[in-house]
Amino acid sequence: MTKKNNFDRRTFLTRASIGGASAAAAATLAAPAIAQEAPTVNWRLTSSFPPSLDTIYGGANTLSEMVSECTDGKFNIQVFAAGEIVPGLQAVDAAMDNTVEMAHTVGYYYWGKDPVWAVASAIPFALSARAHNAWLYHGGGQDLYNKFLEPQGLISHPGGNTGTQMGGWFRNEVNTVADLEGLKFRVGGFAGRILEKLGVVPQQLAGGELYAALERGTIDAVEWVGPYDDEKLGFLQVAPYYYYPGYWEGGPSVHFFMNKSAHDDLPEHYRNVLKHCCRAADADMLQKYDYLNPTALQNLVDDGAQLRQFSQEIMEASYNAANEVYAELEGTNEAFNEMWGSIKEFREKWYKYLQTAEATYDGFMMWQQGQGNL
Amino acid sequence: MTKKNNFDRRTFLTRASIGGASAAAAATLAAPAIAQEAPTVNWRLTSSFPPSLDTIYGGANTLSEMVSECTDGKFNIQVFAAGEIVPGLQAVDAAMDNTVEMAHTVGYYYWGKDPVWAVASAIPFALSARAHNAWLYHGGGQDLYNKFLEPQGLISHPGGNTGTQMGGWFRNEVNTVADLEGLKFRVGGFAGRILEKLGVVPQQLAGGELYAALERGTIDAVEWVGPYDDEKLGFLQVAPYYYYPGYWEGGPSVHFFMNKSAHDDLPEHYRNVLKHCCRAADADMLQKYDYLNPTALQNLVDDGAQLRQFSQEIMEASYNAANEVYAELEGTNEAFNEMWGSIKEFREKWYKYLQTAEATYDGFMMWQQGQGNL
Repeated sequence: MTKKNNFDRRTFLTRASIGGASAAAAATLAAPAIAQEAPTVNWRLTSSFPPSLDTIYGGANTLSEMVSECTDGKFNIQVFAAGEIVPGLQAVDAAMDNTVEMAHTVGYYYWGKDPVWAVASAIPFALSARAHNAWLYHGGGQDLYNKFLEPQGLISHPGGNTGTQMGGWFRNEVNTVADLEGLKFRVGGFAGRILEKLGVVPQQLAGGELYAALERGTIDAVEWVGPYDDEKLGFLQVAPYYYYPGYWEGGPSVHFFMNKSAHDDLPEHYRNVLKHCCRAADADMLQKYDYLNPTALQNLVDDGAQLRQFSQEIMEASYNAANEVYAELEGTNEAFNEMWGSIKEFREKWYKYLQTAEATYDGFMMWQQGQGNL
Repeated sequence: MTKKNNFDRRTFLTRASIGGASAAAAATLAAPAIAQEAPTVNWRLTSSFPPSLDTIYGGANTLSEMVSECTDGKFNIQVFAAGEIVPGLQAVDAAMDNTVEMAHTVGYYYWGKDPVWAVASAIPFALSARAHNAWLYHGGGQDLYNKFLEPQGLISHPGGNTGTQMGGWFRNEVNTVADLEGLKFRVGGFAGRILEKLGVVPQQLAGGELYAALERGTIDAVEWVGPYDDEKLGFLQVAPYYYYPGYWEGGPSVHFFMNKSAHDDLPEHYRNVLKHCCRAADADMLQKYDYLNPTALQNLVDDGAQLRQFSQEIMEASYNAANEVYAELEGTNEAFNEMWGSIKEFREKWYKYLQTAEATYDGFMMWQQGQGNL
């Protein structure tokens, strides 16, 4: 983003904020749907991400363009980066209180409010992307999520998926559970609660501080996203061991969260445009990651990244630790129990099914790749 | 579909066909985009599938509903099953000559016109669904396909994916390449050309004749789609060996093919509604299959289906046979060479990348499933 754009945006913000409520919301109220078939509607969306992440931040721009294109430019969603209106991790709060009509963020950032926030995005050892989307759209997942969100004044649509993430950058190799003892690991919220059971000391640092902290050894490891996003960060210079898989994010969904009142005030066909364009933008993000990640991974390896697979010992211990945490929550949190129970029922069927056509096809093709035959 | 609906549809057809060109096309022409912001547009879509296949046929209904919902009911796409307007395998011809504005079908049905038709849907040992979509939308695949289709008066959007298909129902086990010699196998077009090299005798039979032919032994095997669609057919009673993977369809795309002139006559925002809703419907089909297939596979096994994995010998021989056919085409068909070359370049990177986070995550979860721990 250029300086000029930043300046213009902030000027707009000042104007839009006059009177407390956003000018965009006021404009919506002034043009009731009944009086005008295709009213001009201006919404604001706050993202949890910086514009440098063109995939995950870009998902909101993709949606905005699609919605505008479908309504002949009449339904406009202006996208603001993290920090322009509110800090990145307060995006849903801004949508809840109608500071903005919409947020683009990941549910698990808000697990501190309630772990249920995380379940529809990603919790450790849940579903990978295709199965997660099957569950969200056809297994009742989104209905359960929106049932949970409605009393909080929100409604959501899935808004992107990164695919299975990488496990992150480590200064030293970790081979056993004993190697995790005292490991200072920058890792997202809910996953940290589970890794703590294995002796990991989760760290919360802002993105800008990570490189220096890794270089000095203030922290031992950092997980971020996948190769395409990670390539931009340069961590391999200071933490060259690049582990996989990020088993706490097998197929995390990003979501669009709308203020429920603002959403319900839209003309019906605008609500539908929003819903179907969210679905298209949701698919687009994974397709974009899937196209970009393979080349980025090759670049990282060419530049010296040392690929390492987490050991079976670490994976199994983490799986058991996750199940301990889930068992506690199932006994105390009814909404968690319902949603996680729904995922678990499908997960058992999915991973049995996957062993037939899908995994044997990909397995054969990976074998051919290994033989140098592709 | 009820009899009542059938009757109404045929009455409509008679009326709509008056004057040679479709009434829908005439209506579009009579209401230029410039004069009316949101004109009423009525399109007809012919599907290659019967309504009993609620997933793959249902994709056209899903699109039709989405488009109508986004345009306040003004852009209507009426869906006709295979045989209602033209036979299923003539769907693209009907869109080419503007008998209908749109077809919903699979490119490889038309490989006899030119093998390039098949490449953007599925050819043996190409990409599985996620990678295929990454290539179509972000790797230039759709652009290449539309460049090929434009001189034929068509433009396309992806319109669904089934995931890796099953290999089909066999009366007897096949373990070696020798077992394929003389095997009368009902298998889709382009794959048949490759399997012929291994001694298979491809069969073309209409869907309604398959059960009796299998029962009498007139044919030895049938491939169809995947568990959810296959469950409806009852083949396990007469051909109980259910093979995987269907390596000739690792992740086949269904497409929406539009008559290019009818498409270009649409107001711009209707073209965008169509494009983005196609993308949402495209994603929806795979999500629906992915949710339904695991339960259907379990049902089939419970009912007596004998799951069998194709042997490494058969897979390798088929892979080599496919490469022989591709080498011939690369030397003689420039458009094939360009499109297949683009896929191959991405395929090598994808199957290397897949071995890191994605496959190890799913592999661990499949291992836990095998241990009874999910």
